[in-house]
Amino acid sequence: MKPDCLGVIGLSELGGSVAWQAARAGVERIIGFSRVRKDGVAAVRARAVTEMATSVKRVAEVADLLVLATPVSETVHTLRSLAATIATRSVYCTDLSGVKGPVVKAAVDLGLGERFAGSNVLVARGDGGFSAARPDRFTGQIVYVSPAASDGHAALEVADFWQRVLGLQPVTIDAERHDRILGWTSHFPQAVAAALAKTLASRGPKGITYGPTALAILDSVVSDTEAWADALLHNRQQLTEALEGFGLELRSLESALRRGDRQAVRSWLEAGSNWRKRAVE
Amino acid sequence: MKPDCLGVIGLSELGGSVAWQAARAGVERIIGFSRVRKDGVAAVRARAVTEMATSVKRVAEVADLLVLATPVSETVHTLRSLAATIATRSVYCTDLSGVKGPVVKAAVDLGLGERFAGSNVLVARGDGGFSAARPDRFTGQIVYVSPAASDGHAALEVADFWQRVLGLQPVTIDAERHDRILGWTSHFPQAVAAALAKTLASRGPKGITYGPTALAILDSVVSDTEAWADALLHNRQQLTEALEGFGLELRSLESALRRGDRQAVRSWLEAGSNWRKRAVE
Repeated sequence: MKPDCLGVIGLSELGGSVAWQAARAGVERIIGFSRVRKDGVAAVRARAVTEMATSVKRVAEVADLLVLATPVSETVHTLRSLAATIATRSVYCTDLSGVKGPVVKAAVDLGLGERFAGSNVLVARGDGGFSAARPDRFTGQIVYVSPAASDGHAALEVADFWQRVLGLQPVTIDAERHDRILGWTSHFPQAVAAALAKTLASRGPKGITYGPTALAILDSVVSDTEAWADALLHNRQQLTEALEGFGLELRSLESALRRGDRQAVRSWLEAGSNWRKRAVE
Repeated sequence: MKPDCLGVIGLSELGGSVAWQAARAGVERIIGFSRVRKDGVAAVRARAVTEMATSVKRVAEVADLLVLATPVSETVHTLRSLAATIATRSVYCTDLSGVKGPVVKAAVDLGLGERFAGSNVLVARGDGGFSAARPDRFTGQIVYVSPAASDGHAALEVADFWQRVLGLQPVTIDAERHDRILGWTSHFPQAVAAALAKTLASRGPKGITYGPTALAILDSVVSDTEAWADALLHNRQQLTEALEGFGLELRSLESALRRGDRQAVRSWLEAGSNWRKRAVE
């Protein structure tokens, strides 16, 4: 679908980019809402939105496609508060939070299954407000779309919007499988990068220069900690399973180091290195 | 010093780059040795060396500056086999392995303290042989130089070579402090990145697309596993100390996740994120 009126709730990096890119793609009316005044002002200035609403309800009253671009918990909360409004209107709704299970479940529980599909765009996220938004942020990127109803009609409309209006590549995937995959590929690596930073912060020597590997990992760490805390908590089952495996691998390295077992250390390093060469990209 | 004859033992990524960049800087005679035939052939073709030696002894017999560009264990072994030759000639010697303690100790034990200083260039290392070498690889990069003798004369000559001939920025640092710092800033992050790859390789779901954070970390993993195994083993005391702290931080995250303690998860993420913003670069 190409909406006549797109509503975007949350105008930080992701929501701001959706609005801005939709504006460039010719969506005529884009109504935004942000709890962060600065983001709203910047979005109006950039002409990423055509108007700002003073409440989320107002957005849901006029949009024919509604994008919730907030952390998981806030998204579920907003869905609840808008359920009655959405139910009485012909509006499709999606979100951009990093965990799909709880959001899709909330939509179904609220009777919005026919109107809702969850989305997750695979782009790196900074710690940014609207200042990190870009009008070409999504072009060519992959977006996961998770249907809430078995007929998947809303998912088709939402996927069509992402593809036709914003130039994304939609991949339909059920919410449970999405969360399992993202737990391994996104939340787990993010937790590992954050643990590295936390360890260096709390326990490392001060005033020293970091090597290229540390810098590459730590680059990922400066990001929206509220959204990440929310995603890690909502996907904690998958995440703790991955972290348990990670702990076992670390202990296996530590044991090989203690034994001074060169062959074991090397095999351990090679398993990851070979897999990286083979399996990624 | 600007050597009349530079000897380089090991012509993979680092040694190859040293030879090549020295050739471009006008060092007239560069004699190389490599156990890897392909690297020797490529170095001659690129004119990174003016001649190849058939033994390490031959290199030590003619060079007035000798660079050992091999993993730690091999470097110590080579120093031992060349000690008698080096002692009878006016030659300075350095190495490029990632751990300085064992190499400097070997030089001192062999009576080469006045001729030797260890070096470590802070550049990202791939898994490359000479094909990954570049004639401008080191320009502007930091190189740590660790003296073996208290007068530091050899360290001054070696630092002068790095700075004046290869355009590096030398920082003099004693071997013990070097290894402590590198344990935290290089070996520890590398072990964490490798553990992430190893976990995904052994335990992750198959056939899936990886997120930007995972890719950024995993980029560091494809590297010379022999040299890394050697460095991790030789610096295992520092490394296991860092890994123990890392394990504690991970368990603190897991505990907060299990309790569903949003504030604790967020504070944990913020400690690393704030430190990253503040302390790095």
